[in-house]
Amino acid sequence: MMHQIDVCLTPELLHLYDLKGKIVVIVDILRATTSMTSALANGVADITPVATVEACRDLQSQGYIAAAERDGKQVAGFELGNSPLAYLDGAFAGKRLAMSTTNGTLAIEKSKAEAAEVIIGSFLNLLAVCDYIQTQQKDVLVLCAGWKGKFNMEDTLFAGAVVESLVATHTYSCDAPLAAQRLYQVAKEDLIGFMSVASHTKRLQNHGIEKDIAFCFQLNEYTIVPKLRGSVLTK
Amino acid sequence: MMHQIDVCLTPELLHLYDLKGKIVVIVDILRATTSMTSALANGVADITPVATVEACRDLQSQGYIAAAERDGKQVAGFELGNSPLAYLDGAFAGKRLAMSTTNGTLAIEKSKAEAAEVIIGSFLNLLAVCDYIQTQQKDVLVLCAGWKGKFNMEDTLFAGAVVESLVATHTYSCDAPLAAQRLYQVAKEDLIGFMSVASHTKRLQNHGIEKDIAFCFQLNEYTIVPKLRGSVLTK
Repeated sequence: MMHQIDVCLTPELLHLYDLKGKIVVIVDILRATTSMTSALANGVADITPVATVEACRDLQSQGYIAAAERDGKQVAGFELGNSPLAYLDGAFAGKRLAMSTTNGTLAIEKSKAEAAEVIIGSFLNLLAVCDYIQTQQKDVLVLCAGWKGKFNMEDTLFAGAVVESLVATHTYSCDAPLAAQRLYQVAKEDLIGFMSVASHTKRLQNHGIEKDIAFCFQLNEYTIVPKLRGSVLTK
Repeated sequence: MMHQIDVCLTPELLHLYDLKGKIVVIVDILRATTSMTSALANGVADITPVATVEACRDLQSQGYIAAAERDGKQVAGFELGNSPLAYLDGAFAGKRLAMSTTNGTLAIEKSKAEAAEVIIGSFLNLLAVCDYIQTQQKDVLVLCAGWKGKFNMEDTLFAGAVVESLVATHTYSCDAPLAAQRLYQVAKEDLIGFMSVASHTKRLQNHGIEKDIAFCFQLNEYTIVPKLRGSVLTK
């Protein structure tokens, strides 16, 4: 039996979707879900996503490593910002991480109450996410974190990649997955080139993190699928 | 000086946009704004868009011609549904029209309080709309009516056509106009073919209105720009 796949272009539209029984794939390519994937693939014990900087600070006082950015910058007093490169070489292996980001954490908060399961997607683990979904007999919603409530390109491209990868097992009846798939088909030969004119890339370029951006668009570096269990992400 | 163009993908996201001083272009290709354009181009005196069927019925009792559809079907007791073909040959020339539709009227209601001006766009008057915008020194927001709050393809393609037509005078800094433009670039050689897999086309196919759909994707049939003055649309 074919299952359904749908794409929610921003958390602001999430109230229009029924999450019951579904796998929700959270995506915030630049950079929350990319960092989560990188962290867990590089030995971090688990990640507690929180909505506010204050909640992150609370967990820091209990021994967690604190990671948070606001408007693309690391929060003062925290060990980490939102760079997926910080976890390479197992620099934080075995540690527990508390993470708050502008858009990504909010998407998780909004979906964890209703969905059957919440997993984390990024280009780094695209194939692993799609393989995992195909082992489950469930409908899927890809939830794009967006940018301050609005549509963004990078999350939509990832959603399109998932739609395209699942054509054999998952159909759709709405236009958001269709648009995401079409955009991905145009972009896929040169993701970074296609993204060079997108707004978030331009914003981040001012922060001098070109290496971060290049890493965020690398496909299938890792085979893990981060999954929310209670309030904690583990691989 | 370059002006800004932005695209709001559904009225559900309109609270994220500042309309002050802007021209808002309302678009509901299938079929409200296409019908409005057709009606005024074919001699209808004016159109009063209303949110509810009841408000439409009130105006009918005052001598207006009543046009309304719900879920793609004409409302019982009304002279017209939402077909743009009904106005050809001047069948309602000189008449005042009251119109309520599922998505399009709502988009007008939501924007008329704040925007500098509200105009009506469709493929039928694409060039006229773009020419009009270029005579004004204003920022522009294309407001897609969407489908029950969600993104839809046809309105986004029109938005992309406007973005593409205004590249010489209007820039953008968000991803929604970028995505709309890219989708239009893919679709423009064969709009109807591209749309044949979109959800709204499929829904309407069940209503046997292929001729309506073909008409909705004809470019530049008319040179009028319907504009909201008070609560009434005139050309």
